[in-house]
Amino acid sequence: MATYTLGIDYGTNSVRALVVNTANGREVGTAVVNYPSGTDGVLLHPNDHTLARQSPADYLVCLERVVKAALRQARWQTGMRGDKVIGIGVDTTGSTPIPVDAQNRPMCLNPKYKKNLNAYAWLWKDHTAFEEAARITAQAKKTRPQFLAQCGGVYSSEWYWSKLWHCLNVDRGLFAATHAWIELEDYIPAVLCGVKRPEDVVCGVCAAGHKAMFNRKWGGMPDAEFLASLDPRLAQLRKRMPSEAFAIDHPAGRLTKAWAATWGLPEGLPVAVGAFDAHLGAVGAGVKTGTLVKIIGTSTCDILVAKNTMPVPDIPGVCGMVDGSVLPGYIGIEAGQSAVGDIFRWFVTSVCRGNDALQVKLTAEAGRLKPGASGLLALDWNNGNRTILVDPQLTGLMVGMTLHTTRAEMYRALLEATAFGALTIVNRIVEYGVPIERVVCCGGIAEKNALFMQIYADVLNRPIFISRSAQTCALGAAIAGALAGSAYPAIEPAIKAMTGVKPTVYRPIPAHVAIYRELYGQYKLLHDAFGAVVDQTAPVDQTPRVGHSTLAGLMKNLLALKQKRAQQ
Amino acid sequence: MATYTLGIDYGTNSVRALVVNTANGREVGTAVVNYPSGTDGVLLHPNDHTLARQSPADYLVCLERVVKAALRQARWQTGMRGDKVIGIGVDTTGSTPIPVDAQNRPMCLNPKYKKNLNAYAWLWKDHTAFEEAARITAQAKKTRPQFLAQCGGVYSSEWYWSKLWHCLNVDRGLFAATHAWIELEDYIPAVLCGVKRPEDVVCGVCAAGHKAMFNRKWGGMPDAEFLASLDPRLAQLRKRMPSEAFAIDHPAGRLTKAWAATWGLPEGLPVAVGAFDAHLGAVGAGVKTGTLVKIIGTSTCDILVAKNTMPVPDIPGVCGMVDGSVLPGYIGIEAGQSAVGDIFRWFVTSVCRGNDALQVKLTAEAGRLKPGASGLLALDWNNGNRTILVDPQLTGLMVGMTLHTTRAEMYRALLEATAFGALTIVNRIVEYGVPIERVVCCGGIAEKNALFMQIYADVLNRPIFISRSAQTCALGAAIAGALAGSAYPAIEPAIKAMTGVKPTVYRPIPAHVAIYRELYGQYKLLHDAFGAVVDQTAPVDQTPRVGHSTLAGLMKNLLALKQKRAQQ
Repeated sequence: MATYTLGIDYGTNSVRALVVNTANGREVGTAVVNYPSGTDGVLLHPNDHTLARQSPADYLVCLERVVKAALRQARWQTGMRGDKVIGIGVDTTGSTPIPVDAQNRPMCLNPKYKKNLNAYAWLWKDHTAFEEAARITAQAKKTRPQFLAQCGGVYSSEWYWSKLWHCLNVDRGLFAATHAWIELEDYIPAVLCGVKRPEDVVCGVCAAGHKAMFNRKWGGMPDAEFLASLDPRLAQLRKRMPSEAFAIDHPAGRLTKAWAATWGLPEGLPVAVGAFDAHLGAVGAGVKTGTLVKIIGTSTCDILVAKNTMPVPDIPGVCGMVDGSVLPGYIGIEAGQSAVGDIFRWFVTSVCRGNDALQVKLTAEAGRLKPGASGLLALDWNNGNRTILVDPQLTGLMVGMTLHTTRAEMYRALLEATAFGALTIVNRIVEYGVPIERVVCCGGIAEKNALFMQIYADVLNRPIFISRSAQTCALGAAIAGALAGSAYPAIEPAIKAMTGVKPTVYRPIPAHVAIYRELYGQYKLLHDAFGAVVDQTAPVDQTPRVGHSTLAGLMKNLLALKQKRAQQ
Repeated sequence: MATYTLGIDYGTNSVRALVVNTANGREVGTAVVNYPSGTDGVLLHPNDHTLARQSPADYLVCLERVVKAALRQARWQTGMRGDKVIGIGVDTTGSTPIPVDAQNRPMCLNPKYKKNLNAYAWLWKDHTAFEEAARITAQAKKTRPQFLAQCGGVYSSEWYWSKLWHCLNVDRGLFAATHAWIELEDYIPAVLCGVKRPEDVVCGVCAAGHKAMFNRKWGGMPDAEFLASLDPRLAQLRKRMPSEAFAIDHPAGRLTKAWAATWGLPEGLPVAVGAFDAHLGAVGAGVKTGTLVKIIGTSTCDILVAKNTMPVPDIPGVCGMVDGSVLPGYIGIEAGQSAVGDIFRWFVTSVCRGNDALQVKLTAEAGRLKPGASGLLALDWNNGNRTILVDPQLTGLMVGMTLHTTRAEMYRALLEATAFGALTIVNRIVEYGVPIERVVCCGGIAEKNALFMQIYADVLNRPIFISRSAQTCALGAAIAGALAGSAYPAIEPAIKAMTGVKPTVYRPIPAHVAIYRELYGQYKLLHDAFGAVVDQTAPVDQTPRVGHSTLAGLMKNLLALKQKRAQQ
């Protein structure tokens, strides 16, 4: 008789639940609920565009409704009953730390802090802590370079310690009243399992390793001495943090009686340790050695794995390398591009002042052009460069325009630019000994834009597949749930049985590969000239390249001038 | 009693006549007649977009009508009679050589050659001779560097010898049947004066010096040995060429009885030597030492003068320096930008898909932005770079785009880019000891676009004036006519009396000057990196700059790839 697993996927604007057949990955029930608060679920500040918070109350209200709805659909589709569900997995955005009290309750639920945005969840894309991030990077570079090596060389304003320290700096009262800061990926399983003390929350290695510099090698979280060198109160906080963090094959606990009753699920159902959406998305897309999973949306997240029995060197400029963050027994490698779909959208809406229909038209027109025939070349840095330069202060560039250049040519050049950006990441990883033989893409662009996919196949010179599931993150969470429920002895057979790719495969066209190889040579010249490192907060293992020093600072100089003008 | 002078101005698409009061420059009658043939007066070839020819029959038909109409208007406005006209001046496009027979008749008027486009006038913007131009540059660099120094370091495909040699290479029959090649600026005065032999045509130094490497210092036209090193038949042709060339204070001859009768003008009216439209445009705009005249349209032509009693060194990268080409007694210095209005037009029509109304809207929006506030920077090379890089194989570039960049910001960045291009020309000329204290602009953009003018004042850090006359080329030709008719003892008092500027003056705003100085520093980095010389046909006196060699070839590499693809 069929058994099922439940995946719960917390995105930026909504939460999704997915009920999946453990034998074959068939998706039998799904539901999405949008967060009711703020702007599309995000709490913004009118005068500080770097701030982005979220309401934990939204998480809880939506959780109840979304699981109910998904189970209802599954029952309707298959006649299954709640007692056939054998496990639950959870993925969330991150780093999204939530300040909680000693009873593991979010601080914002205390009426005293209801109006204080610092008491809410600090959403991944909150950048208020940019100054703290730079200081953490500088301090670690001096005294703990190994911390930086694990996270690509630069500690980000989006990450755990930056956010905590920023709260300490701007809201000492709240920071002092807060007992602990729990990542959303750990908070949701803890809620499902009724954990009443922050100390008892089971910590996932995905958030801890990628965002909080956790590593078993150096005894867990960054040492007290290092944290004290930032602020002694951060070192104090460390005492209340767990000293272990786990991969998704570890149980977070068992479902409470109350939740079980609410949803008609068995009491004590095993709940897996949580992980980030991208990482479980890679699981749902069938990640394995040699397969790069690209989750392509407004930006991309690139995930791959390498057996942890082989030594994998630190790869400079790659966002993070954490043992167990994707699959137990494998180093999880995370990279990404700061803007992909966002760049096309910007060009269509802000430059061409068009809508989705124009994007379809431009895609069709761009598809009739030959590679290299426009004489255009662009850098895909309109939102900075996440991998391999790790520099948010880079900007876009386009070269080659004549008086005859068309908007379709420019649009295609932007598609190609993001593919060249993707190739730069692939090349860097392969140079360091991690093989990439095939690419599996997920996301709307992958499913809808055949031109985009063909350009990627031609530029990357590898076959490009599309994930069979359109909701790979939730599917990955469900696979974690299947593992928690002992449907499989290990993660690899679970992935093999429960994931797949679509029949359409984009294969490199040799003539295009040759042209793009030439164009990429030119892209790399621009990349190295404008992206070269110029300042002291530069990624480790990268030194300024001779002869490019003048152009290397140009984008930053323009941004500095822009900021100066904005303040006048 | 008032006397009048007649200026005749042959543009690319039409001819204009202007009747002017010799005492004060008052314009009392004007008319424009469009050339009837081809596309807007230009004969094109369906399969060769580099070809641009013109019909000499158009020149003659339109001449009769346009002068008649201008005189009619002048009579109607002032009651003046034809016998009050004391002289005629002529300006034309160029280099626009016309193949003629021994009777000074254009070859295309011979029915045998009626269908042969090579027998027509080779319009200035004909680029069919690009290969010959490169070979002339290479040969002169080896054996006659002084020829190149006079014309900015690179001999152009638009110029006299390139065109003649190309005809020789592609149409030996026509070349052999042709007795001489007369520049349009010399052909029209010869027609007015009834010159029946090419040998008797009075040659203007403007075309000869700027486009045919004429210089009194080396005995006139390039020496026979040099021409023979290109092709012996070019050396043969030289024998039938005049050994002198003159400034506009020299008479070309006297008006024939027939023309005088046609127009009701005095027989024997003095006709001045012809010159190019830009050069007489500068005269009409009030050119003098320290004043740069910018004729701003789709591209720009920059004209200034320096007393020929002072030694003026060759200025590398400046299109041409010819004694007497603008004013007798002065070195005429010509520079220019390959695209200005064309770039704005391209952005509005091809990228934004808008019309004139959008351009007005974008100008208004761009005017509300602060200098430096967009973080954008562009290179104005969409049509190559005429001065100071003399490289048609350069292309446009824009850097600094984010996901929030607007089209108004991009439009303003393009305006600023052309101003930075203008400053690069000004700086180069000033570095070589020629002072520039004020700028006088002519053309529609100068009259209509206050934002453009203010940006130029701020970037050039000099007051910018607008020429009082809206038809400065024809006014300059009329001033030459006044001089021919002895209304003034010399050109300087004629210019002083007959030209002026409008009351509106754009003065630099110190805060903007400071910001644009910073931005220009960044522009210069891009300019030097992407514009650096990389090949053997490079301008003289310029050597590759260390550290930029990689980027220096990038635009050319993209163009080469584009051409390769176009041929596939």
